Formats: sequence, C-alpha cells, structure tokens
Amino acid sequence: MAEKQEHNKALSEKKGIDQPTRLNPLAAERLKKNRSKTPSTQQITEGLLAGNKTQLSRALTRIESTAEKHQQEGREIIEACLPHANKSIRIGVTGVPGVGKSTFIESFGKLLTSKENKVAVLTVDPSSSLSKGSILGDKTRMEELVKDPNAFIRPSASGDSLGGVAQKTREAIILCEAAGYNIIVIETVGVGQSETAVHSMTDFFLLLKLAGAGDELQGIKRGIMEMADAIVINKADGENRKAAKMAKNEFNRALHLYPPKESGWTPKTLTCSALENEGIDDVWKLIEAYISETKKNQYFQHKRTEQNKFWLLQTIENTLKRDFYNNPKVKKALEVQLKLIEANKTSPFEAAAYLLKLKK
Amino acid sequence: MAEKQEHNKALSEKKGIDQPTRLNPLAAERLKKNRSKTPSTQQITEGLLAGNKTQLSRALTRIESTAEKHQQEGREIIEACLPHANKSIRIGVTGVPGVGKSTFIESFGKLLTSKENKVAVLTVDPSSSLSKGSILGDKTRMEELVKDPNAFIRPSASGDSLGGVAQKTREAIILCEAAGYNIIVIETVGVGQSETAVHSMTDFFLLLKLAGAGDELQGIKRGIMEMADAIVINKADGENRKAAKMAKNEFNRALHLYPPKESGWTPKTLTCSALENEGIDDVWKLIEAYISETKKNQYFQHKRTEQNKFWLLQTIENTLKRDFYNNPKVKKALEVQLKLIEANKTSPFEAAAYLLKLKK
Repeated sequence: MAEKQEHNKALSEKKGIDQPTRLNPLAAERLKKNRSKTPSTQQITEGLLAGNKTQLSRALTRIESTAEKHQQEGREIIEACLPHANKSIRIGVTGVPGVGKSTFIESFGKLLTSKENKVAVLTVDPSSSLSKGSILGDKTRMEELVKDPNAFIRPSASGDSLGGVAQKTREAIILCEAAGYNIIVIETVGVGQSETAVHSMTDFFLLLKLAGAGDELQGIKRGIMEMADAIVINKADGENRKAAKMAKNEFNRALHLYPPKESGWTPKTLTCSALENEGIDDVWKLIEAYISETKKNQYFQHKRTEQNKFWLLQTIENTLKRDFYNNPKVKKALEVQLKLIEANKTSPFEAAAYLLKLKK
Repeated sequence: MAEKQEHNKALSEKKGIDQPTRLNPLAAERLKKNRSKTPSTQQITEGLLAGNKTQLSRALTRIESTAEKHQQEGREIIEACLPHANKSIRIGVTGVPGVGKSTFIESFGKLLTSKENKVAVLTVDPSSSLSKGSILGDKTRMEELVKDPNAFIRPSASGDSLGGVAQKTREAIILCEAAGYNIIVIETVGVGQSETAVHSMTDFFLLLKLAGAGDELQGIKRGIMEMADAIVINKADGENRKAAKMAKNEFNRALHLYPPKESGWTPKTLTCSALENEGIDDVWKLIEAYISETKKNQYFQHKRTEQNKFWLLQTIENTLKRDFYNNPKVKKALEVQLKLIEANKTSPFEAAAYLLKLKK
C-alpha cells in the first residue's frame, strides 16, 4: 500500500538497488558507541595509569573545569591516582620573560628523555587567566619536546586567583606522576608571586638569569634569589660567553651572602646555552647531586612532608571558598552586594556578614 | 569569749586603737568597681567615637584577640563605627629596613599634626607574627610622635598569615577613622608581599629609597616600583645630598618607562631628609596634589570602591577559614591528620576531604 502511494507522487523515484554498507556494521556500531559516550572516570583513570596521554589530558581537563560535575570526576580520578603518585623529582624553573625559559626547558627536557626519563612540563601562570592566553599556549614553544613520546606539556590552568591555579597545578603533578612521568618540570613566569607557589610544590628550584641585564630589568626580587637552589645564566654563547662567566662569579659571591639553607645545600651557579645545547648536562648533574645529598640528609622527605602539610591547608581553603562562591544563593546575593558597594550603600564588612549568614 | 582566749595566747597583743581609713570609702568603692569591671563594648565604642585613645586601643585589642568572645565584641564595635569611618586619607609607606621609614613617619607625622590633622600610624608586618617582635614594638621608634596628643601609633597585629594581618589592619583603619584620625599612615616592612596588601588599602602609595644602594640590596622588585605614586629618596643630607639628587633623576627616568597609571597621575620623585626635617613638607604637598587631582577625575572614589569589593571577598574568605579552623572537631582532627601526613600515611588531598566532611 505504502509503496503504491509513493509511486503516485510526481517526484517519486523507482526504488533502486541496495547500496553495500561502506563499513563493517559491527565496527561502525562500536565507533559510534565510543564517540557518543564520553569516557567514564574509570576509563580515564585506567588509561592514565597505563600512560595514555589522551586520557591524562582528559583527566587534567576535568580538574581544570569549572563545572561541578567535572570537578567531582576530577576528584575521583585524583583519589584513584594517589597511591601511584609521589615518585617523581619535581623541578621548579623561573626567570623573567625573555630569559629563555622555554628554550631551556626544551633542551633540558630532551636531555632527560634521552636518558630514558619521562618528563612532564607544567606551568603556573596566574596572569594567563586574565589575558586568556597562556605563555605556553603559544604553539611555537618547545616545538621538538612537544613531539617527544616521553614528554608531556600542559599549559597553565586558568583560575581566578593564584591559589586556584596553584591548587590545580598540585593536582596535575599527582596525575602526571600517576601516568608514569618521573620528572616534573614546573615553569613559572617570573613576575609576581607565583614563584613562592612553585617553590612550595617542587624539590629543586632553578632560577634562570641573563648576563648583563640589571636586576631592576630582570625584575628578580631578593626573595626569589633566596629560594634558588641553583642560578643558571642562560644564553652563554657567542659574544655573550665572557659576560655570562662574569655574571656567574658575581651571583656566586651574592649567594654566599645569604644564610645557609635548611637543606644543607649550598646553591650553585652555572652557565648554559639552551639554544646551542651547551651546559644543560651540567644542570642535570647538579640536580642529581642535590637530590642525592638531600635524600641522604633526609631533607628531601622533610621538605615533602612540610609541603604536604601546606597543601592540606591550601586544599581546605580553596575548597571552602569554592563551596561558598558556588552556592547559588550566595552567587545571586553577591552580585547585589557588589552593586550596593559600588553605590556606596554598604560597607565590605556589612556585606560580608550578610553573605556569610546566607550559607548557614 | 574570743577576746579572752586571745589574751591567753603567748603571742597575743593588746587590741590597739582603730586606724583611720586611708581613703574616702566611697571613692575606694568606686575605684574598685571600675577596676573589676572590664568596659562594655558600648563604653569602648562611645569612648572611641569621642576620640579617647585608651578606648581605641581597647577596641584594637578586641579585634586582634584570638578569643572568640573578644572577636565578637570587636565585630560589634566595628559595626557601630562604620557610619563614622571612610573620612580619612590613607597613605601607604614602604621601603626596605634601613631606609629610614620610622624617622620619615615621625617627621611626616609631626608636620601633619602641626597642621591640625590627627594622624594614626599602623603597620603591616606579617613577619612579626613569626619573630613575635614587631618592628614597631621597638620602643625607641617615633619617640616624639608617640607623645603627640594628635597622633596614635599602633604596632602590627600578629597573625598566622598575611591575609589575617591585613584583615585586622583594615579593621583598624575603620576604628581609627571613627576615632577622628583624618590621616592614616600604613607602614609596611618592604620585604615580601605585604606591599600589595598595603597598596590595596591605601589611597596613596609612597616608596622610600636610598641613593647609592643597588636595587638588589634594596630588595625592591619591579612590581613595587609600579605601585608607587611617589618615590622619595631619603637621607638626602650632608655628603649624601648630591647622590640623592642623582638617584632622584634616575628614578624619574625609570618611572617614565612604565605605562601610564589608571589614576591619570604621573608618579613623582622627591628627595628628603627625615633626620634633618628637610623636604617633608614637599612630600605632603605632593600627596595633597594627588588627592585633589584624583578626586577631580573621580579616580579616588573609584579606587576606594574597587578596594571595598576586594575587602568584601577578603573578609568572607578570612571568616570562612576562621570558622573552619576554630571548629573544635576540626581542630582536634586536624592535629591527627597532620601527624598522619608526617608519617606519610595519608595524602594532603585525602586529609582535606576527611576534614571538610567533618564540618558539614
């Protein structure tokens, strides 16, 4: 009946022959199923623990997400990863823009992977949240390292505050370690307070400098010099070689003015040329010496314990804030209170008291 | 009977004549009553609003106290003071130790009180919590200003964190303003991150410098230069005068390299000798010019509004933390969790999750 009716229509066509299926229908079914379903946290975790970069990236996207559902999934993944974490060496790298951090990390990372290490590079850059463009988002950075199967590069998480960014980076360390990366390099932009955050999550803190540039220009404050376990003068190549050597000696003298470190380690200065791949090996040897010395005198574990205590408090405080600001009642009322402040109709103290009562 | 028995004792004495009372009994009664009763929050508030320094000090002690009862009283006092606050000029002063901050503030404060202002000097020094000794605790500081009836000097509140110290300082500003101080000078130690906190609570930010000392030594990072509305080269006296003038020109050039400020104000450089009381008047004239200019272009009120929004969030976050850590269950469990972290038996993330559940 139906067929007959169709034939009666002006635009109807004769039913042609059946086309062969272009794909094995079973395979198509499987592909569709995989495509339509986002992987479960269990799938992500299993893949991550097996060292799968795609799943590691997915897990990182979960923890960086602002959606409560994703954050919950992120927390589940972290929990599953915790027993497999903590087995890496964590290295902080800082230095002002222009000092050659990415070139250095590329050279350094390639050296490490050539020595059968797996290297993850993370960045702490709270400013990227504001400019909506991370320095690592620049695709020309670390061109070679990014293709290395034993390297994993992830730009800075964005967030409203350094605390939020730091929290996500700490979680990212755990995930990368669980994925089998045994060396984690954490880069920071060298301006502002992110150095302290990176220092609080790494075993070794490396400050990159240039010869010749005044410290006003390099924007390095005393506190950052004090945190450094090594100062490496980069771009020690060509005509710059002599100046770099002089700068090295100068910084060496400056470092001796600081009180001895709790680690028992005397900070060292080195020169290198990341561009010409010179002196990078010495930097790694120095870090190895540091790790060996501080493991022997037990400072390594002591520092990790202190960092863990600090992370505990930071995690608590970040969660308290998140829970408060994500509360829908608070969200709505906060907007109103901010408007009242703008109109000079309430004080910050009164507004805070009002909002805090909402949550109780 | 009793008297007779006494006479029988070997060491007894004859009952002598009655001694006259040494004090008017009514007055004694009144004194005792006053001594035994700590003043009520109402009494403190009334005294404070009348400009009584003792009551102002008492109010500050309430907000600095860690006892929940005192904090509650402190909040009541603040609430009562709010309608009387916000009517001062708030000036931040920074510079590394040795630059002469206290000598400067003493000269500057005396100048201001001679011009019929009431000046309150507060300090933000988070390190004082650690060393348990504030720089302002040193009694030889500001010897003359401290005796000035129109000046009020209060050392830094102590606290576990810069956030806590900053919060208490912001509250102290409100109390001092309500007590009639129309100029609030907030000093910071010039090392670390307290400058940012002070910048976020002041209208004008003044950076003290010395001629001749390198910036590495002066420990001033670029960010602090950027915050400054004026750079004042102190100790421009005797043989130092010429070097100070050169430094002034140099900083002037450096300041011109920074992008224009949102305030529309071009930061100025000056020289002064706090010790010889030279050039202090010019500093005040500069600040007056700034206030007048930014009030005209409405940046003054805009900045205060932005600061108030920031204070709102800070107050909320500090309160969330305080409420959490003051919870008796949390307090007890936190100690246990910290010990587990020390023994490497839990991770900061697991411990945080456990503690956060307790509060719910």
